[in-house]
Amino acid sequence: MRATEEERLARLALHRLAEPGDPRLAAAVAEHGAVTVRDRLLAQREEHPLFHDVAGRLTGSEPARDLELADRLGFRFVVPGDTDWPGGCDDLVRAEPVQRRGGPPLGLWVRGPLPLAALSRSVAVVGSRSATSYGADVAGSIAASVAQAGVCVVSGAAFGIDQAAHRGALAADGPTVAVLACGVDRVYPEAHRRLIDHIGEVGAVLAEVPPGCSPTRLRFLARNRLIAALTRGTVVVEAALRSGALNTANWAERLNRTLLGVPGPVTSATSQGVHQLIRSGAATLVTDGAEVLEMVGVAGEHLTRPRRGDARVRDTLSLRHQQVLDAVPVYGSATVESVARTAGVGLAEVGTGLERLHQLGLVQRSSAGWRLAPPAHR
Amino acid sequence: MRATEEERLARLALHRLAEPGDPRLAAAVAEHGAVTVRDRLLAQREEHPLFHDVAGRLTGSEPARDLELADRLGFRFVVPGDTDWPGGCDDLVRAEPVQRRGGPPLGLWVRGPLPLAALSRSVAVVGSRSATSYGADVAGSIAASVAQAGVCVVSGAAFGIDQAAHRGALAADGPTVAVLACGVDRVYPEAHRRLIDHIGEVGAVLAEVPPGCSPTRLRFLARNRLIAALTRGTVVVEAALRSGALNTANWAERLNRTLLGVPGPVTSATSQGVHQLIRSGAATLVTDGAEVLEMVGVAGEHLTRPRRGDARVRDTLSLRHQQVLDAVPVYGSATVESVARTAGVGLAEVGTGLERLHQLGLVQRSSAGWRLAPPAHR
Repeated sequence: MRATEEERLARLALHRLAEPGDPRLAAAVAEHGAVTVRDRLLAQREEHPLFHDVAGRLTGSEPARDLELADRLGFRFVVPGDTDWPGGCDDLVRAEPVQRRGGPPLGLWVRGPLPLAALSRSVAVVGSRSATSYGADVAGSIAASVAQAGVCVVSGAAFGIDQAAHRGALAADGPTVAVLACGVDRVYPEAHRRLIDHIGEVGAVLAEVPPGCSPTRLRFLARNRLIAALTRGTVVVEAALRSGALNTANWAERLNRTLLGVPGPVTSATSQGVHQLIRSGAATLVTDGAEVLEMVGVAGEHLTRPRRGDARVRDTLSLRHQQVLDAVPVYGSATVESVARTAGVGLAEVGTGLERLHQLGLVQRSSAGWRLAPPAHR
Repeated sequence: MRATEEERLARLALHRLAEPGDPRLAAAVAEHGAVTVRDRLLAQREEHPLFHDVAGRLTGSEPARDLELADRLGFRFVVPGDTDWPGGCDDLVRAEPVQRRGGPPLGLWVRGPLPLAALSRSVAVVGSRSATSYGADVAGSIAASVAQAGVCVVSGAAFGIDQAAHRGALAADGPTVAVLACGVDRVYPEAHRRLIDHIGEVGAVLAEVPPGCSPTRLRFLARNRLIAALTRGTVVVEAALRSGALNTANWAERLNRTLLGVPGPVTSATSQGVHQLIRSGAATLVTDGAEVLEMVGVAGEHLTRPRRGDARVRDTLSLRHQQVLDAVPVYGSATVESVARTAGVGLAEVGTGLERLHQLGLVQRSSAGWRLAPPAHR
């Protein structure tokens, strides 16, 4: 059911009243509706047990003006019931809160043309801000390859892995969504202004906090839960032991999303967190985009084959013929008797074996005896 | 029950008659005893259905002389029933053969002072011959750390990971065993003569094939099964998709040994095989010696703690105090009112919050207001 305009405005106002992800607020809204909750909070102000500090925030909260301004700047405010509402957010309703945070968003601010339906086939690519060039390369290449397959790459526009993931998706002309901890009219970090603006032109920039809000540590944590909730799976590319990316990974796990990890050198501190995730069984090891697609794609849509080296002719040989082949010298030549002695196989069998190997191009015959064919022929 | 001298000589003779690991031979010996099997084979020679090609091998087979010579060179021939017999080999009796190979060894040749009882606490460290310097470093450091804990490092003395593992154990003055695909009197590769001789002086060099035998491809495969069987677990450090180390890994899995894998860059071909093992769930990811010890050590003897970054003071703060802390500027100063606005927290609470943060040394007060303490203090 599509939300009424009043419900939408009420949700917008509540966004100004509370930090994102308060599960008590979300529960109250689910029970009584946003309009009632907003009105009660405004009426009770200082006394209300839930938000004894909302008073200071009421100044300057003008939802209708917010919406009008947003409209002029081309931002949308999407709420549950809108066709564009990403269903993944609803899983947060049932998620266990952490430190009294983790409830579903009351609405999402969107900047950019990408329909949020793209999130139904999406993967988060996250990791360390202080990524190594190895990590950035791998993140970019995984993002490019999944985006090329039409799977939306979601990340947080931060330094390091995040930006490499967005750039990879953009380079492949694929869909990408940046989820910010500040308002969609702002950028963080400032150095990524052009990147974020570009995503806002071809993809989508999302935020739970209203325009104008600055990023805080708690908003980063709230943003991480959103990245996990919006996507079908999260790939952690590099993460030190206390990386914020592990927070996203925990949310992905808690929300029963597919959790994937890209390994790196064990000597690299920025891979330690990922290795722990894989070691503990929380994350599945992946090494490229195809493996990621297989894990987060629509069932059966992206299947990889377990890798193996090229089959070789020698694998098709019987055990006896392998024994004979092993006994033929690389340099010089050997008589049938000599091959038989080395192989520990009877003379007659060596004779037929050598004929067969000769047919397969594995050995060569000369006047002096038998030798291996040059590698190019083998 | 200790084997009789005749049984020992019969096993020794059978070693010359067949390639290692023939499960039919092992089964026949288990049923009738080595003496009977040897006598039947010698009597029937060409006609015997089991070994229609042993005839060529009988020349030069003089078990008593073999034993005398070995004694002079300081080699031992160990058979089941000897106190030194490594019990792990017996698990091969029940293992499913692969390509008609995989039965238990009839005996083992030993060169070196290390009692084979050391294998009751042992780990195989194996991997690519064309290892990267990263792989060799990690193999060496894992081997050194487990050997220092008294756990015997078993490997194949090959180029790359194998030699790095042996050298790591030797550098730590720890026990190490090299299992060869040729006789214990020979060395392979020739470039490792000094390494293998040194292991023969302070550790042990093992072989299933009799002295004088050269290594063949089938003997390498048989040797790999032995490395897996002799140890409590196998660590694969680097292995390309067709690496022989994966053969050892398969045997470790088949024998219900602990299988461990060290990850590396996904861009490195020599780590692809290991990543597959971890991805498929066959191997557990390990990053250092302590994690290896935990997995293969005596239960409870070597327990690692899951790693995490250092706990920080901010983790001990309440949510409200974290909000306040986030709102205090790094540069310049802010009034209580300004902090309250940024934090979205009531004035009174910000006041008590700032006092608490001040006590903890997290913030500083000046005439102009509040600011964060320098990082060294936080």
